[in-house]
Amino acid sequence: MNDTSKTFKPPYYAVIFSSKRTDGDKGYSKMADKMVELASQQAGFLGVESARDEQLGITVSYWESLEAIKNWKEHSTHQIAQEKGKAMWYQSFSLRVCKVERDIFFEM
Amino acid sequence: MNDTSKTFKPPYYAVIFSSKRTDGDKGYSKMADKMVELASQQAGFLGVESARDEQLGITVSYWESLEAIKNWKEHSTHQIAQEKGKAMWYQSFSLRVCKVERDIFFEM
Repeated sequence: MNDTSKTFKPPYYAVIFSSKRTDGDKGYSKMADKMVELASQQAGFLGVESARDEQLGITVSYWESLEAIKNWKEHSTHQIAQEKGKAMWYQSFSLRVCKVERDIFFEM
Repeated sequence: MNDTSKTFKPPYYAVIFSSKRTDGDKGYSKMADKMVELASQQAGFLGVESARDEQLGITVSYWESLEAIKNWKEHSTHQIAQEKGKAMWYQSFSLRVCKVERDIFFEM
């Protein structure tokens, strides 16, 4: 989605992935697009939004359940991306799994 | 902080604020810096990270409790910023309050 126009009915789950990239693309952009496409096909996927500037990237994906997050974590193509991420693409990252309790959308 | 090097001991809380800006700065950057400074002084504040590109901005702030989030929401200077945000700075935004259940940091 990458817009703020979708809200979902709490409770649901969010995965906050914050990362610092290494220099150069090295296949990263292509993989990132592929991961969004694949995640979107997973059962229990609700949406994803992301922003990246020179300092930091933040991607938040939204899911119906912890089980859906677990299944996506273990998806074989995603696991390859996770390994490449550690080996090539990221200097550091943090990953937080959260239960969304309130959800507000405001359009001016 | 705006780095991924801090983790906190779950459970704690995250506020995910995703926004689309209007054109032009109109005092936005100065306000944004001031809000980070003020939030950092609040009881129960843990940290904040944000990223913005041409499409979207995502700011995630981390808090010890729902009460700390409520107090920050009601902070008088923050309330002025919220009103200006609706009037001038944002096309749309979403705001999600979450309980962080798991927290991983990985440095390569």
